[in-house]
Amino acid sequence: VIGILPGVYKAYNSDVTVHVQKSVTEVSPGDFHALVIPGGRSPANLREDKAVVEFVKKFFETGKPTAAICHGPQVLVTAGVIGKRTLTGFPEIEGELTAAGGTFKDVEVLVDGNLVTSRIPGDLPAFSRAVEKLLLR
Amino acid sequence: VIGILPGVYKAYNSDVTVHVQKSVTEVSPGDFHALVIPGGRSPANLREDKAVVEFVKKFFETGKPTAAICHGPQVLVTAGVIGKRTLTGFPEIEGELTAAGGTFKDVEVLVDGNLVTSRIPGDLPAFSRAVEKLLLR
Repeated sequence: VIGILPGVYKAYNSDVTVHVQKSVTEVSPGDFHALVIPGGRSPANLREDKAVVEFVKKFFETGKPTAAICHGPQVLVTAGVIGKRTLTGFPEIEGELTAAGGTFKDVEVLVDGNLVTSRIPGDLPAFSRAVEKLLLR
Repeated sequence: VIGILPGVYKAYNSDVTVHVQKSVTEVSPGDFHALVIPGGRSPANLREDKAVVEFVKKFFETGKPTAAICHGPQVLVTAGVIGKRTLTGFPEIEGELTAAGGTFKDVEVLVDGNLVTSRIPGDLPAFSRAVEKLLLR
């Protein structure tokens, strides 16, 4: 798991903890086969961190699987990679995804090229399967 | 002051309180001469409220002065009204304003037609003067 600052973080609405092993400033797109951007409140902060945005942009441009769920696609908007993609996300972010040039569809998972997106936690099984499928291509 | 729910709200980082007199669902664009969307953390919530987004869209389309500062322009992005406007905002939201079709400039205030935008609290004097100027046209 990479993030802004290494450390152990507790989820804001549960006891789940996440161990951020490295900062995005310590890694490069070549170190990973896929990028998964989770949702919740973190994308609002991640999208305001220059190093994160730059990493996401560079990673996306490699063409390797890039996945985002719930509010995760907000980071893709700020990274300027939505283009004319067809995608989904948390229903309340439809407006900004559309404004960024994307075509929004209300389905559990959408795969458009290397981009995988889903809406809500309930979509996680379909989301994970889609990412796995791209990795096994 | 209008908002999502009427009530008295305390600012998250100071003792300032704001009295939200009416919900956006109780008012119409014809009730106001101008719309000012402040910044801080509220735009992240405002932009996810359908009634707010609809009101902002309708208000903007009347051509009356519409102003936003700091994170305020995020609501304009979701309302789909940025179009090809030249605007500014909190530096960290530059990416999403650009993705929405806008041209971002790092200046204290920008007036493009009926749209007035500023970056940070320190821009408030110039921001207020620009809104006032539009109102006195």
